[in-house]
Amino acid sequence: MARKLSLDGGPSVAEEILTGAARLFYDRGYDATSIRDLAETIGISSSTLYHHYTNKQEILRAVLHRFMVNFNAAIIPVLRDPTLSATKRVREATRLHLEITDERRPELLRFTQFRNVLDEAQLRPLIQLQWDYHDAVKSVIKEGRDTGEFTVDDVDLATMAILDMLNGVRSWFSHSGALSMNDVVQRYVTMIDKLLS
Amino acid sequence: MARKLSLDGGPSVAEEILTGAARLFYDRGYDATSIRDLAETIGISSSTLYHHYTNKQEILRAVLHRFMVNFNAAIIPVLRDPTLSATKRVREATRLHLEITDERRPELLRFTQFRNVLDEAQLRPLIQLQWDYHDAVKSVIKEGRDTGEFTVDDVDLATMAILDMLNGVRSWFSHSGALSMNDVVQRYVTMIDKLLS
Repeated sequence: MARKLSLDGGPSVAEEILTGAARLFYDRGYDATSIRDLAETIGISSSTLYHHYTNKQEILRAVLHRFMVNFNAAIIPVLRDPTLSATKRVREATRLHLEITDERRPELLRFTQFRNVLDEAQLRPLIQLQWDYHDAVKSVIKEGRDTGEFTVDDVDLATMAILDMLNGVRSWFSHSGALSMNDVVQRYVTMIDKLLS
Repeated sequence: MARKLSLDGGPSVAEEILTGAARLFYDRGYDATSIRDLAETIGISSSTLYHHYTNKQEILRAVLHRFMVNFNAAIIPVLRDPTLSATKRVREATRLHLEITDERRPELLRFTQFRNVLDEAQLRPLIQLQWDYHDAVKSVIKEGRDTGEFTVDDVDLATMAILDMLNGVRSWFSHSGALSMNDVVQRYVTMIDKLLS
């Protein structure tokens, strides 16, 4: 059984562990989730789990890392697309940022909360991924200012303000509310257009 | 000694406990701070501390409550000031929001983190205070739309976007950076003017 999993389903078991862990950390909290809970929920043995990840901290790191890598891979190419105007790149990135953070909400564990849980070596690549995204947003705002599409006094602060606006949505948006995510996207695109105009 | 404290210094000891607790919770984390640590840091006995607050959870509730009451008392009258235009009220509230959250940063414990620590009866008044502030911001945006000062499609989303922008600042602003808090205030006032325009 262990052999079968590692030969046929190796990578997908590792992925399943991350998805299951994100869900449990999100629902119950990181501290309240044990490796045993996690193995039971996924339907594998603790030893299969330890075959993939050495400890809970490493699972947390991998959940955050996978999310950030996927997030950046989806959005940074759009932010750098030379065939689109800066305005269009910001609009498209706004849509992707809101949609991805909504769809993958359980994986989006509050990073700031885990600064104490993860060690320096585990944090460094995660912080770098955050900076890569931040820098891509900043570059497109700067470019839009250079082309005259945007008139921002301070590119750094406009970047922070927009990222805080976008990151805030997941803390209050609910699919049971009056607005769809698509409504929110359209209204945020308009507000960000105005903020940068 | 206990008598002296409760007669001459009663209210101020209670206040000192909250300020000391906020500092320790902020620096070490809520879980890592014991009642004993707290009493030692303030320089009182644990029994004096228990005379004022029944437990750590109650101290946390009181820290959050005091902050929110003071915050609302400083800003809501400005948001409702009938002698000022909606534009001026939003500008002044932006300044106050950023300055108060900066000056009293240790007390501004991440409320969302404590939803599990506090019970329903403790949370309800805190959530109400948050809504009071939210509603005052929303009302002034609505009023500005009615007078034609603002052109917002969606008053609710503009409210959330602005609050998320303002609340985000404390997570990245540093007094050792290139900008003063006053610089940040001026730039946020401009961005919010544009977002609402």
